[in-house]
Amino acid sequence: MSPTLPQNAIATVSLRGTLEEKLKAAAVAGFAGVEIFENDLIGSALAPYEVRAMLDDLGLACMLYQPFRDFEGMPGDLRRRAFDRAKAKFDLMDELGADRILICSSCHPAALGERERIVDDFRELGDIAQQRGIILGYEALAWGRHVNDHRDAWAIVEAVDHPHVGIILDSFHSLSRNIPNDSIRAITGDKIAFVQLADAPLLDMDLLYWSRHFRNLPGQGGLDVEGFVAEILRTGYDGPLSLEIFNDRFRSNAARLVAEDGCRSLDYVRDAAKRLIDQPTDMPAPQPVLSAEFVEFTADGRDAARLGSNFATLGFTLVGEHRHKKVTRWRQGGVNLVINAEPKGFASAYRAAQGTAICAIGVRVKDKAAVLARAAALGIKAYSPEGRPGRLAMPALRGVGGSLVYLIDADEVEGLWAREFHATDGDAGVVGADARSIDHLAAVVHNDEFLSWQLYWRALFGLEARAAQDVIDPSGLVHSQALQSADGAFRVTINATDARETLSARFLDHGIGGGYQHVALITDDIFATAQALRDEGAAMLDIPVNYHADLAARFDLDDAMIARMADLGILYDEDSDGAGFWQLYSRAFDKLFFFEFVQRANGYAGYGAPNAGVRLAAQNRFRPEATPTATL
Amino acid sequence: MSPTLPQNAIATVSLRGTLEEKLKAAAVAGFAGVEIFENDLIGSALAPYEVRAMLDDLGLACMLYQPFRDFEGMPGDLRRRAFDRAKAKFDLMDELGADRILICSSCHPAALGERERIVDDFRELGDIAQQRGIILGYEALAWGRHVNDHRDAWAIVEAVDHPHVGIILDSFHSLSRNIPNDSIRAITGDKIAFVQLADAPLLDMDLLYWSRHFRNLPGQGGLDVEGFVAEILRTGYDGPLSLEIFNDRFRSNAARLVAEDGCRSLDYVRDAAKRLIDQPTDMPAPQPVLSAEFVEFTADGRDAARLGSNFATLGFTLVGEHRHKKVTRWRQGGVNLVINAEPKGFASAYRAAQGTAICAIGVRVKDKAAVLARAAALGIKAYSPEGRPGRLAMPALRGVGGSLVYLIDADEVEGLWAREFHATDGDAGVVGADARSIDHLAAVVHNDEFLSWQLYWRALFGLEARAAQDVIDPSGLVHSQALQSADGAFRVTINATDARETLSARFLDHGIGGGYQHVALITDDIFATAQALRDEGAAMLDIPVNYHADLAARFDLDDAMIARMADLGILYDEDSDGAGFWQLYSRAFDKLFFFEFVQRANGYAGYGAPNAGVRLAAQNRFRPEATPTATL
Repeated sequence: MSPTLPQNAIATVSLRGTLEEKLKAAAVAGFAGVEIFENDLIGSALAPYEVRAMLDDLGLACMLYQPFRDFEGMPGDLRRRAFDRAKAKFDLMDELGADRILICSSCHPAALGERERIVDDFRELGDIAQQRGIILGYEALAWGRHVNDHRDAWAIVEAVDHPHVGIILDSFHSLSRNIPNDSIRAITGDKIAFVQLADAPLLDMDLLYWSRHFRNLPGQGGLDVEGFVAEILRTGYDGPLSLEIFNDRFRSNAARLVAEDGCRSLDYVRDAAKRLIDQPTDMPAPQPVLSAEFVEFTADGRDAARLGSNFATLGFTLVGEHRHKKVTRWRQGGVNLVINAEPKGFASAYRAAQGTAICAIGVRVKDKAAVLARAAALGIKAYSPEGRPGRLAMPALRGVGGSLVYLIDADEVEGLWAREFHATDGDAGVVGADARSIDHLAAVVHNDEFLSWQLYWRALFGLEARAAQDVIDPSGLVHSQALQSADGAFRVTINATDARETLSARFLDHGIGGGYQHVALITDDIFATAQALRDEGAAMLDIPVNYHADLAARFDLDDAMIARMADLGILYDEDSDGAGFWQLYSRAFDKLFFFEFVQRANGYAGYGAPNAGVRLAAQNRFRPEATPTATL
Repeated sequence: MSPTLPQNAIATVSLRGTLEEKLKAAAVAGFAGVEIFENDLIGSALAPYEVRAMLDDLGLACMLYQPFRDFEGMPGDLRRRAFDRAKAKFDLMDELGADRILICSSCHPAALGERERIVDDFRELGDIAQQRGIILGYEALAWGRHVNDHRDAWAIVEAVDHPHVGIILDSFHSLSRNIPNDSIRAITGDKIAFVQLADAPLLDMDLLYWSRHFRNLPGQGGLDVEGFVAEILRTGYDGPLSLEIFNDRFRSNAARLVAEDGCRSLDYVRDAAKRLIDQPTDMPAPQPVLSAEFVEFTADGRDAARLGSNFATLGFTLVGEHRHKKVTRWRQGGVNLVINAEPKGFASAYRAAQGTAICAIGVRVKDKAAVLARAAALGIKAYSPEGRPGRLAMPALRGVGGSLVYLIDADEVEGLWAREFHATDGDAGVVGADARSIDHLAAVVHNDEFLSWQLYWRALFGLEARAAQDVIDPSGLVHSQALQSADGAFRVTINATDARETLSARFLDHGIGGGYQHVALITDDIFATAQALRDEGAAMLDIPVNYHADLAARFDLDDAMIARMADLGILYDEDSDGAGFWQLYSRAFDKLFFFEFVQRANGYAGYGAPNAGVRLAAQNRFRPEATPTATL
C-alpha cells in the first residue's frame, strides 16, 4: 500500500505563497513529494494537468490529495451527493496524478454514527476507487462528530477490509487527545495509507483552534511525535512521513525557511523514532554539548580596547594572545572570552554587518566529527571560509544571527589553547569575582526564526526544551524558550518578539539578524562577587528599591540578606521547593550585550523568569531615547 | 464604601511603558484614577511616595493596589507569612495613598477550602485593615483553587460581615465562566469594593491563557459586559468602573491609543448598561446608520479622469458636477460615487498623504445632531477645517485611516445633492449593470488599530459584531471583523494583518494609515450585471477554472449555471440553510482599491468568507513584483 522508500513530504498548506511558489520551495528544500491541499489548487490558475507537469518538472511526487470532508454516514440524498463529490475528485486526481486521497472523519451535523453504515460507505467507495486505481485513507479528526480517535478509524478500516481503503495517521489529531501511542501497535503496517506529522506547543484550548493556529514542526513543540513515529515504524510502515502544519506564522514566513526546517524536522524525527525502537539509522547520534568553552566577541580599534577594559572590571584577566592573529583571550575561572580584532576573516565580516558583537561561541563535545556528520545529515551548514574548512583549527557550524558554533573535542581543549595562544602576564582582573563557568547564553532572533532555532538545538545536539516563558518588557511581550542539555551543563535561551520597542526588538534592529545578547556566568558566592565588582567600580545594573521591599514580603529571607541584596543590586527567585537563585546584571556594553552572574542553590532549574520584567524595566531606563549619551 | 461619583479607572498593567509613562497616558486620556499593578511598581525606580506625588500632580486617584495573592485558607506558618505579607503591603499602600487592595482567591496548592477558616482569615485581616483605614476587596479568580465564582466570594464576604471587607467583581472572571449576570442581584451595592471590566473574544481555551493574552476593552469582544455592569448599577453601586486588560497587543500598542479607547469603552458600556435598566444617562442614544449614501474618492488631473472612466466601465453614470468645486457625482441605482479633485481642503490633504484613495464616506442617519453629540461624549473627533465646522454642508467625523464619515439626515439627502450639484447629461455608464445600493465597505487598518475601529463603530452607531473570520491570503493570515446595523442595511468589515506581504499589508504600506480598500454593491441580477460589464469591456478579476470545478462538486447547482459563473468570473457561497450568495470582483484601480458586486438570496447574512482566499490568490497574481506594468 505504501511506496518503497522512506520519503519526506509536505502538505502545500504548510507553506506560504501561490501553489507554484509552494511547490518550488518544497522541491528546492529536497522533499520527495507533496500533499496537494485542495484550497491551494482551487485558488490556483494552473489547471490540474499543469500542476502535474510542474510537479514532474520539479521531481516531486503528488502523494496525497486532501482533504475530502463529510463523506461517511450521510443519510438519503446527502449520501448520493457525497459519492458524486468523491467521483468528481477522483476525476481531478486522475488529471493531477494523485493516487490517494485523505477522507477525514465527518463533522457534518447530519452525519450518522452507525458503524455498519460507515463501513458500507467505505466499502462501496473503495470499489469505485479500486477501479480508478485510487487508495482511500481515512483519518480521525480530533473533533470529528462520531469518529475522533484513530482507534475508531482503525476499527472501521479493519471492518471494511478493502484493498483500497487504509488509515491515515496524523500525530496532532492523536496526540492532542492524549491517545496512547502504543495503540498504534494494533494497526497493520500495510493498511497505513499515509502518515501526517505536526507538533504543537502544549496549550489547553479548543482542539480546532489549537490545530488551526498553533501547530508546528516536529521538534518545535511538546507532543511526543518521536514516540508516535516509532510505533508507526514498528508496524512495518515504510511510506512517506509528511508535514501538515497550520500555523499563523508559517503562513507569512518565507516558504524557503519553513521548507528547509520541515525537511530537517522529518529527518530528525525519523532518526529519533528509529533510535527508540533500535532500528538502524544513517544519522550519527546527537552529541550533547558538554559545556560552552568560550564566547568570541568581534571588535576592533578603540572598541576592542574598551571591551577588554569592560571585561577586566567584570573580573576577567587577559591570559593569552593569539600567536598569529589580533585575538586576545580573557579568563575568569572556567570562562573564556575572546576578542577578535582581525581585519579579515569571519569576525571581521560579522563586525561589518553587526558592529561590535558576539560573533561565535565554542562548545565542548565528545566527538566533533560526529556532530559535523549529523549537521550535514540535517542540512545544517558548516562554516567554510574560501571553501577550505580543513585549514581551520576548529570546525564550525552556522548558528543564530549568522554567528558560528565552533566545535572542540573535550580532550583537545587544553592543547588547542596552548597551540593557538601564548600566555601573557597581563594585569589580573578584579580579584574576588569568581565566575566558574558559563550558565547560559541568551540569543535574540527574529520572530520568524523563533521556532527554527529551537529545532536547530534540539535536532543537532539533543537539547531539551523547558517550559516557554512570556517575559514582560515594559514595551511588550517577549517570548522566551530555554533549551538545555540533559545534565544542565549547557543552556541557551531563544528570545523573540513582535513588539517593536522592546529591548529585544531594538537589539535586533541594531544588526542584521539578531544573535547572542547576554552571557550568564555561574558563581558560587554571588555576594563576594558583587562586592568585588562594586569595589572595582564595575558598571552594574541598578535594581529599584521597590523590588527588594517586595522580596522581603514574598520570601522568608533575613533582613540583613535583603539589605545586602538591595545594596548590591542582587535579584532573587525561589522555586516551589524553596531552592534559591540569585542574579546580578552588568550594564550593557554600548547598549548591546551584557553579562549576568548567577548562583544556583539546591538544584534550582529555572532562569529567574519572575525577575525578567524588573531587569527589563531597569534596562529600559537607559533607553537611547531617554539618555542618548549615557552608557547602559 | 465607594467614592461618590461614577469614575473611569484603569489598571496600569493595561498600558505599555514604564510606570511613569502609564500614569501620564492615563491622565491625558481623562481617567480619574488608576489601579497600581504591583509588578509595575516593583519594576519602577520611583519610590511609593514619589508615585503618590506624581499621581497628585497628574490629578489621578490611586483607587486600588493589586493583586494580593494566596492569602486565605493557608495552614500553619504559611498563614502567619500571609498576614505578614499583607501588613507589609498595607505599609506600602500608606506611602502610596491607596485605601483599598484586591485580594484574589487563592491558587496556592496548600490553601484549604474550609469556609469557616476563610471567613476567619478575612475577619482578622479586616480588623487590621480597619485600623489602617484600608478596605479589602475579595475577588474570585476564574481559576481559583477553592473559590472561583463571585457567588462564592459573595457568600464569604457576607459571612465575614465586616465594614472593611467587600467584594470585587471582574467581568472577565464571571463571564468567562458563564456565571449568570442576574446572580449579582444578591449582592449589596455598598459591599462592592471595586469593579473591574474586561471583554474578550469568544474562544474556547484554558481560562488562564485566555485571560492573560486575549482580554480586550468592553465593546471589542463577545462577553455581555453591558449586562454585567447593568446588574452592578442596579445594586446601587456608584463607584469607579475600572479596566484591567491583559492583552499581548496592548502591551506594545501606543499607551495613548489604548488609554483613549479605554475611556471611550467605559463611557460606552456605562451608557449601554444604564439603558438596559432604564437609568438616566447623559449621552444621546446611538443612532443607527440607515445606509451608506456615498463614497468619496480623492483624485486629481489624469487620475481623476481615469477613475471616472473606470467608474463608467463599471456601470456608473456621471450625473452631477459640484456647483463650486472640482467634484463630480457618479451614480448607479442608489449608489453614489464622488470624485473630489479640489486642489485645497480635506480631499487634497488626504491625497497628499495617501494618493488616489477613498477619502470619505457619507452615511444617512435619522438625527445627525444626536450622532455628533454622542461622538463628542465618546471623544470621537469631529472634522473641523480651520476651526469652522459650521461652514460645512455636511458635518463629519474622523474615521478609519484618517478618512471622514459625513453625516446626512435622511430627510435632507435629496435637497443636499440638488443644492450642491447641478445635473449633467453626461454619457450613461454601461447599460445593464444594476447595482442598487452599497452592500458593505471593507477597510484595512494597522493591526494595532484593529480593535480600536471595532469599538468606534459599535460605540458610536451601535453596530453589531458578527463572528470574526481568518482570511487566508497566500502570503499570510488576515483578520477580518464584520460589523453591521441591526437590519443589515449598513455593513463594514475591518481587516488587519501582521503578515507583511499580504494584499492588506501592501495596501497599508502604500499610504499612511490604511482606509477603505473595497466597496461592495448589491445587485438583484448578478448575471445580467456581469454580462453587461463584460460587453463593455470592464476589467474584472479572473477566477481560475479549478474554483468552478470544485463548486460543481460542492453544491447542487445546475451545470449551465456553473458554466455561466465560470465564464463570467462569478463566485458563489451558500449557508447551511441553502441561502445563496454570488460575488463578482473588479480588477483593482492602480492596485489600490476595487469593487465587488454581490447578490444575496434568502437572507444570506455573510460575506462569502470561503471565497476570500480564492479572490486573494487571484489578486495576488497581479502583484506589483510579478507584473510591474500590469493593471490589477
